[in-house]
Amino acid sequence: MKILAVGCHPDDLEIGCYGTLAKYVQLGHEVSVCHVANGNLGHVEIMQDELRKIRFEEAAEAASVIGAKHYSVDANDLYVTADDDELVRRLAQVVRKSQPDMIITHYENDYMNDHVQTYQALMRASFAASLPHWDLEAMKAGEQVAPVCPIYHMDTLSGLGFIPTEYVDISDTIELKLKALACHRSQIDWMRDHDGIDFLDFVRCCSRVRGYQCGAAYAEGFRANINYLRMTAKRLLP
Amino acid sequence: MKILAVGCHPDDLEIGCYGTLAKYVQLGHEVSVCHVANGNLGHVEIMQDELRKIRFEEAAEAASVIGAKHYSVDANDLYVTADDDELVRRLAQVVRKSQPDMIITHYENDYMNDHVQTYQALMRASFAASLPHWDLEAMKAGEQVAPVCPIYHMDTLSGLGFIPTEYVDISDTIELKLKALACHRSQIDWMRDHDGIDFLDFVRCCSRVRGYQCGAAYAEGFRANINYLRMTAKRLLP
Amino acid sequence: MKILAVGCHPDDLEIGCYGTLAKYVQLGHEVSVCHVANGNLGHVEIMQDELRKIRFEEAAEAASVIGAKHYSVDANDLYVTADDDELVRRLAQVVRKSQPDMIITHYENDYMNDHVQTYQALMRASFAASLPHWDLEAMKAGEQVAPVCPIYHMDTLSGLGFIPTEYVDISDTIELKLKALACHRSQIDWMRDHDGIDFLDFVRCCSRVRGYQCGAAYAEGFRANINYLRMTAKRLLP
Amino acid sequence: MKILAVGCHPDDLEIGCYGTLAKYVQLGHEVSVCHVANGNLGHVEIMQDELRKIRFEEAAEAASVIGAKHYSVDANDLYVTADDDELVRRLAQVVRKSQPDMIITHYENDYMNDHVQTYQALMRASFAASLPHWDLEAMKAGEQVAPVCPIYHMDTLSGLGFIPTEYVDISDTIELKLKALACHRSQIDWMRDHDGIDFLDFVRCCSRVRGYQCGAAYAEGFRANINYLRMTAKRLLP
Amino acid sequence: MKILAVGCHPDDLEIGCYGTLAKYVQLGHEVSVCHVANGNLGHVEIMQDELRKIRFEEAAEAASVIGAKHYSVDANDLYVTADDDELVRRLAQVVRKSQPDMIITHYENDYMNDHVQTYQALMRASFAASLPHWDLEAMKAGEQVAPVCPIYHMDTLSGLGFIPTEYVDISDTIELKLKALACHRSQIDWMRDHDGIDFLDFVRCCSRVRGYQCGAAYAEGFRANINYLRMTAKRLLP
Amino acid sequence: MKILAVGCHPDDLEIGCYGTLAKYVQLGHEVSVCHVANGNLGHVEIMQDELRKIRFEEAAEAASVIGAKHYSVDANDLYVTADDDELVRRLAQVVRKSQPDMIITHYENDYMNDHVQTYQALMRASFAASLPHWDLEAMKAGEQVAPVCPIYHMDTLSGLGFIPTEYVDISDTIELKLKALACHRSQIDWMRDHDGIDFLDFVRCCSRVRGYQCGAAYAEGFRANINYLRMTAKRLLP
Repeated sequence: MKILAVGCHPDDLEIGCYGTLAKYVQLGHEVSVCHVANGNLGHVEIMQDELRKIRFEEAAEAASVIGAKHYSVDANDLYVTADDDELVRRLAQVVRKSQPDMIITHYENDYMNDHVQTYQALMRASFAASLPHWDLEAMKAGEQVAPVCPIYHMDTLSGLGFIPTEYVDISDTIELKLKALACHRSQIDWMRDHDGIDFLDFVRCCSRVRGYQCGAAYAEGFRANINYLRMTAKRLLP
Repeated sequence: MKILAVGCHPDDLEIGCYGTLAKYVQLGHEVSVCHVANGNLGHVEIMQDELRKIRFEEAAEAASVIGAKHYSVDANDLYVTADDDELVRRLAQVVRKSQPDMIITHYENDYMNDHVQTYQALMRASFAASLPHWDLEAMKAGEQVAPVCPIYHMDTLSGLGFIPTEYVDISDTIELKLKALACHRSQIDWMRDHDGIDFLDFVRCCSRVRGYQCGAAYAEGFRANINYLRMTAKRLLP
Repeated sequence: MKILAVGCHPDDLEIGCYGTLAKYVQLGHEVSVCHVANGNLGHVEIMQDELRKIRFEEAAEAASVIGAKHYSVDANDLYVTADDDELVRRLAQVVRKSQPDMIITHYENDYMNDHVQTYQALMRASFAASLPHWDLEAMKAGEQVAPVCPIYHMDTLSGLGFIPTEYVDISDTIELKLKALACHRSQIDWMRDHDGIDFLDFVRCCSRVRGYQCGAAYAEGFRANINYLRMTAKRLLP
Repeated sequence: MKILAVGCHPDDLEIGCYGTLAKYVQLGHEVSVCHVANGNLGHVEIMQDELRKIRFEEAAEAASVIGAKHYSVDANDLYVTADDDELVRRLAQVVRKSQPDMIITHYENDYMNDHVQTYQALMRASFAASLPHWDLEAMKAGEQVAPVCPIYHMDTLSGLGFIPTEYVDISDTIELKLKALACHRSQIDWMRDHDGIDFLDFVRCCSRVRGYQCGAAYAEGFRANINYLRMTAKRLLP
Repeated sequence: MKILAVGCHPDDLEIGCYGTLAKYVQLGHEVSVCHVANGNLGHVEIMQDELRKIRFEEAAEAASVIGAKHYSVDANDLYVTADDDELVRRLAQVVRKSQPDMIITHYENDYMNDHVQTYQALMRASFAASLPHWDLEAMKAGEQVAPVCPIYHMDTLSGLGFIPTEYVDISDTIELKLKALACHRSQIDWMRDHDGIDFLDFVRCCSRVRGYQCGAAYAEGFRANINYLRMTAKRLLP
Repeated sequence: MKILAVGCHPDDLEIGCYGTLAKYVQLGHEVSVCHVANGNLGHVEIMQDELRKIRFEEAAEAASVIGAKHYSVDANDLYVTADDDELVRRLAQVVRKSQPDMIITHYENDYMNDHVQTYQALMRASFAASLPHWDLEAMKAGEQVAPVCPIYHMDTLSGLGFIPTEYVDISDTIELKLKALACHRSQIDWMRDHDGIDFLDFVRCCSRVRGYQCGAAYAEGFRANINYLRMTAKRLLP
């Protein structure tokens, strides 16, 4: 199976579903990850251009930790919008390249606009990628149509306002998840050294409570996107 | 009474509420239908410009089957957005021309972005149409203000995620509904011949289950839009 | 049409739906009202047995104000439960006697147990009343089966936690509603004289806001009970 | 795996989940079915005692059609309540005998009190069955504790008010499901001959729409019971 | 202020709200705790009568850890029901004795019947306690009416299905909470020694995630009971 | 404490939360109000440019009535969108200038697009205002970062579709609220003289019902925005 996970910032997928993605890889599936925003505003000291490059590298390293292919759409922080045709085109290209059997992305009521727009841009891109007459030039140049496929929403940050309907046991991949998250040094180190926040503990603790909820040591929670063409009569989560 | 139904693609209203619209017409009401997207990406072989024309004709024919007036806003598929001022202007013109006592449109959580944007564009257009100082030139040229009126949401495709609060018995108009739907040959024939999908059976079957839910042979389900200026103390559905 | 309204305490229907019931009567329909609890604990000074009689009389007087037939199930306050077979039997008798085309009752999440149990007892009684082999002796004695019919939930006290999906314009019957409510002197007078609460203002004000919500001077709000055999493809509210 | 399905009336499971149960059996799992009410009021002509026996036989025959073990708790129609200690004891015995890895039952907001009480009685019975010191005499006589296990809610009648979060493709077992349902001649024949209702068409049509919703020819819809000790990190549905 | 917390089993309040209760005590408020079930079925080896006594002592000790007054209604496990008049009478006595300004109890959709019934019995008892003519003999013997007061629902076990609307920072009382929980040796020790479950870690971890959600080291989550006479225009939580 | 309230049209905050804002001021807090749309289409006779100026003055006067600082973002009516970078920049400037400890704004499901977009633009602006590298030139010119802070949603117009979770008693400030609302003569007078609508009665009546719901003479209702970084373990409402 081919799985595509689309997050907003360079560390969002690590927080929300990297345990699950690592498990997919271990089971022999092909996983692609894509961050839509480049994270260029996510630091107090490092300036935008430099940070954008650093965070791309951190995300690439995190993807390699779990053995996922890494894509970026490279929108600037705070400027992600589903109305951006070019952003949607680039996201649809990622969908066509990765040919997913299922997609994981943010929840529709997530905590900031860039996250919500990422979901909505993905919805637009997912339909675009499936239409043979969309972006005809790219098609002539060899791009392949990607069928509309099921979508799962990963947990929100700290689980606020999110009631999972399905769980994935990540007891075997929690350390990989945290190792991948730790690649985001520009975020993790800063928070630890300057704000006294241990973000790895935060994420471990949330995964542990999701585990308690479903009888596993560690887990991640998901909700299926209940829409036409998105539901299927089998479990796609590992 | 004057009823305006606003759907996204050329066949969406046929699927969601043409039984009800046909019933309105039979009861002597004046029905206008409007599709916002031109459906130009909805085929595997027919190219965009040609398809756009074909689908306009199919929609016009479907409207004539039930005796409705036919409008189109002519946005390109995948590019419907409530942020498009020109699209909203054209939609507001349709509202002002049709002077509706009530409007039927998509559900706010529908399955694709173009559908959701159609609803949101309609909300914007509906307010715009009611304001005497909006589009002053058009007003001077004779356009009439149309009061804000109640809105009903029609069912989603296959009924996913939609719990109707009101039903319309379409036992007497189910065949008209299907006849109108069958006008969309570019869609129906293709699905039947190439994908083996009998879309007419799909729609009949969904109408039948909505019928079983309310004690009719066939029915369509709706939800009132619960917002200020939209609620009324009587039933507007036929 | 025949309408049965089932409330818990002797004044609950007056507060929640007497404007609507009065309108039904004015339109020529036949309205029956029934309170399940006898209200025997609803006073600080008047003792239970005396209060039970007073409140029955007050309710009977209120029913006569709007021209409704009056029933009582006579359960003691705080002891209403859908598990009480005798209570359900008496309630089913009321259903069979009144032969309703539709029923109005409390909301399923109402604010106190007696109200919720009234709804649940009614559900049980409504099915019981429809079965020819239930209470065979009563049947032999002439009781008639009453078909399962649609149910509407009236507003909660002060509207808390209740979002109406349908409204009834009671501008023409608001004074009758308040006149009927005023019959409950044991409640209204006590609150006014000892607690300084003007309950008639309370109810008028709530009806006024429901009116503002649907464009009427005064209104009452309702929700259809969305269950099999309860939905219908037309409006039953006046 | 061992599956226990607990329905209220003798034909409720057939309508809601027999396609899924048949599929379990075909996959080699062990399926037990149990109806809580004996259905003794479900006919216009046949009297209670006789009907109770007929319906037990019909249910037994239906169970044998799909190869399920058949239990009955034998409560009288309209008298199912989770407060009935004896009913709960008998239901807990069924749980202990069938030792389920998962349970399927009614939805918590189902359309009649007996169905809702069946769910609540099952919740009570499921905990009781898991406690070593509950019904000590039965334990001494050899009854085995049955662990608390996940619960899935099957669809409501006609799907009213129910949004499935998981689907089972029953294309291969729809005919078996209908064959089992047809065993309930006291219900099916009566409705066909006297009320002109084709209940088999009703159920087939609902299964077809659930199929359209998830991309299968026929399907049944379910919701997991989201409670502590009930969630698990894998799919238990077939 | 006087606070009454009513839980089902002897350790439920400790898990759900003892951090908050300890904080109330530290702020000078008067806290009463009451468990409705005696927990007599909550062990694999210790028999019912002995366990009932042990658990009462454990609960009393836990209450003394935070300085709360301790009550018990002493219903048997699995037999808690709001229909039990005697249980409700005893619970109303606790309400009248403790004269609460607010009450904390289980959530209405909690995971097992005894918990849900505890909430419903409390609702009934709370109204009963407020009525001067309820339990007249007790009144004559000196019992005082207790006014209807606001109710808050504490978190569910592991937070499943519960979205808090208000939080209490328990960073200063988390250790007291865990110390009180640890008093329940019959539960904690057994789980640790025989099942390998560290329940103290479970509760600490859940409190930590609730803390992450509201910016505190540790927190407990609550939802106000949105019903007439229960809402107030100020925060009652500490 | 510093409070920022962001409404769409010049009178929206007055209707939704001016009683609460006046109370904040009386308690010594610092309140800033900001309207995003300039209200230039809100009249039948007065033309856009003139109306824009009139309404700014009316809003400024209303703010001075309660002692609040007044800001305007000056977007044209019907053209408010969270995708407008310049609008978001101006709104973020207001956030940075007012340095709020909490923000009050519209509900996410409000009745018209401009209101919903105001909320979404605020979400974007609130994050932007908190990032040191956003709008660097403004930062160099002295703008100060404003931390992400809790958000409360005020009531919808007439309370439609809104269930408050927290209330503020505005009995002491209801007259100030109405006095501030009355400053909007272009709206209030027109409605009274030409449409026969007494908008002050409308608002008073809605505040009275919210009061009845929480035991106050007059009240305003709110819902906390349940998102990461927005929740706090104390009440911020007065």
